[in-house]
Amino acid sequence: METVPATMQAVCLQAIPQGMPQLADFQLQQLPVPVPAAGQVLVRLHWLSLDPFLRAQLGGRYVSPCPPLGAVVPGYAVGTVVADASGRFVAGQWVTGLLGWAQYAVAEARALQPVDPALGPPSTAVGVLGIPGLTAWAGVRRILEPEAGQTIVISTAAGAVGSIAGQLCKAAGARVVGLSSTAEKCALVTAAFGFDACVNYRAPEFADALRAACPQGIDGYFDNVGGAVLETVLSQLALRARVVLCGLSDQYNRSERPPGPNLGPVIGARARLEGLVVYDHLDALERCRQELAGLIARGQLHYREHIHHGLENAAAGFIGLLRGENTGKALVAVEHAA
Amino acid sequence: METVPATMQAVCLQAIPQGMPQLADFQLQQLPVPVPAAGQVLVRLHWLSLDPFLRAQLGGRYVSPCPPLGAVVPGYAVGTVVADASGRFVAGQWVTGLLGWAQYAVAEARALQPVDPALGPPSTAVGVLGIPGLTAWAGVRRILEPEAGQTIVISTAAGAVGSIAGQLCKAAGARVVGLSSTAEKCALVTAAFGFDACVNYRAPEFADALRAACPQGIDGYFDNVGGAVLETVLSQLALRARVVLCGLSDQYNRSERPPGPNLGPVIGARARLEGLVVYDHLDALERCRQELAGLIARGQLHYREHIHHGLENAAAGFIGLLRGENTGKALVAVEHAA
Repeated sequence: METVPATMQAVCLQAIPQGMPQLADFQLQQLPVPVPAAGQVLVRLHWLSLDPFLRAQLGGRYVSPCPPLGAVVPGYAVGTVVADASGRFVAGQWVTGLLGWAQYAVAEARALQPVDPALGPPSTAVGVLGIPGLTAWAGVRRILEPEAGQTIVISTAAGAVGSIAGQLCKAAGARVVGLSSTAEKCALVTAAFGFDACVNYRAPEFADALRAACPQGIDGYFDNVGGAVLETVLSQLALRARVVLCGLSDQYNRSERPPGPNLGPVIGARARLEGLVVYDHLDALERCRQELAGLIARGQLHYREHIHHGLENAAAGFIGLLRGENTGKALVAVEHAA
Repeated sequence: METVPATMQAVCLQAIPQGMPQLADFQLQQLPVPVPAAGQVLVRLHWLSLDPFLRAQLGGRYVSPCPPLGAVVPGYAVGTVVADASGRFVAGQWVTGLLGWAQYAVAEARALQPVDPALGPPSTAVGVLGIPGLTAWAGVRRILEPEAGQTIVISTAAGAVGSIAGQLCKAAGARVVGLSSTAEKCALVTAAFGFDACVNYRAPEFADALRAACPQGIDGYFDNVGGAVLETVLSQLALRARVVLCGLSDQYNRSERPPGPNLGPVIGARARLEGLVVYDHLDALERCRQELAGLIARGQLHYREHIHHGLENAAAGFIGLLRGENTGKALVAVEHAA
């Protein structure tokens, strides 16, 4: 068995964020490396996933509850098995699960999924071949169902979910228009991910630019944002449009839930809005993973990773994610002493 | 041919209503009885339909445009053929169409539908056996799809659409909870239309009363209201609930579109919201009419009519409809000199 130190770095929740999280809401600590009991597995983390839903969770607005103050910040991660007290894994095997912001973690064996490194780099198990990829796949295949020639708009188009969702719509023959928050990210969305166009939703002329990019109206919209962006898109829906309601990043940092969009245009367009929670679609995870890995291998699907180095930079990376500063999947490369 | 006077009563649009319409927005006038050209039909009106969508139309927010000032107020009506220059109808035949607020009207023959008086009293052609009935039928059968044991909530439950929609859900085995605006109307909804419960949405304890009436959450909701009522219902949706967005009576009298409901609960419930415009479902009108007439004949479907007498009372009846003062289908019995 590999040598395991007595203590490890971990990031604990110091305060419940008010508004945009601050570095002081998180504290890097030295904690004892946990010891697996029967049925449990000790995992050495290599990649920690930074996800927008954590902000909702820390505000008590997620399907999983907010962790108590002082607890290790929750998060999906990828690592290798150090010690297995379950008989299900072997040492060195790649696994993924909700391991948290720490160098090591103990988890119930049944809460871990094996990662097949033949499908892609292990980090993709929390990105394109993990929950973000499944989110994109479920929204596109099970709700949007884009058809050739339709115009599909994708929010957070440079992000882990949006970049994949848009490419899946392109593969279905749709015209795909991304929404992103800077000119630089918009350029990446068209150049690296092959969207037909990308509109900066923070620009003052957003509504007009979107109309110019979608002259026939919007047949489908994948919303991770809510707020004014959603309201603008709804006002430009084509008849019988479909809208995936997947996230509300616009309000994750607010203490009160703001009002939503007027729904008159939804009636006028006879549109269908549907809420998506990715955990309802875990039945398709393996199928989705095989399919996306195949597309990547054939050069038909591209992904990016935005990597922060070391747990000491996890909080800053998470805040940057909420500010829209990342492109592609936000990850922390968990570092260990040599 | 029956004797036709030279002039007739008609109600013309005097002013575009600002907020709640006023009597002075409408003017009773004497106009020449129009003469049908080739392909047209002269109809003597018996029943004029009062519909909430007219308020949206007068505000420029409907699929049909607002009529010009001075024009006869538009509206569905039922009448008998006086003179046919089309060869499609016979004198005395019952017909329905968009005839307007007048004692007589000329219409293109192809814009008129024959009314079969064997199916029900002719007035029902603009009520339960007409567009309101089809609206209820399409929302229930094509969007809500209620199943036995589910809890379905119906807004404007004492009205022309809601009363029928709720009974169709009851017939499908659902538990049906109505929403109405007075205790008296709530009592009617349960006593006359057989809803399992009815909650007064104007009462201060509305949210709690709704939760008490729907302890398992709301599996389906037929919304004709929007606004705070919709927001409250969305916060109590059960998993995978369906919502029919059919009307926004809450905002028909406002000049600006107010914000809508926060959509976070829609994501949490993985709910589906769908806009309904009844004219998309005209393919089903005959089938719906036969089905509803059969249910009425067997005593399994009940309807009410709220009748105002004479065109001079049409404007007051329309205002009363917008105030929620009617029960059942709001009609004007168009009177003619003996």
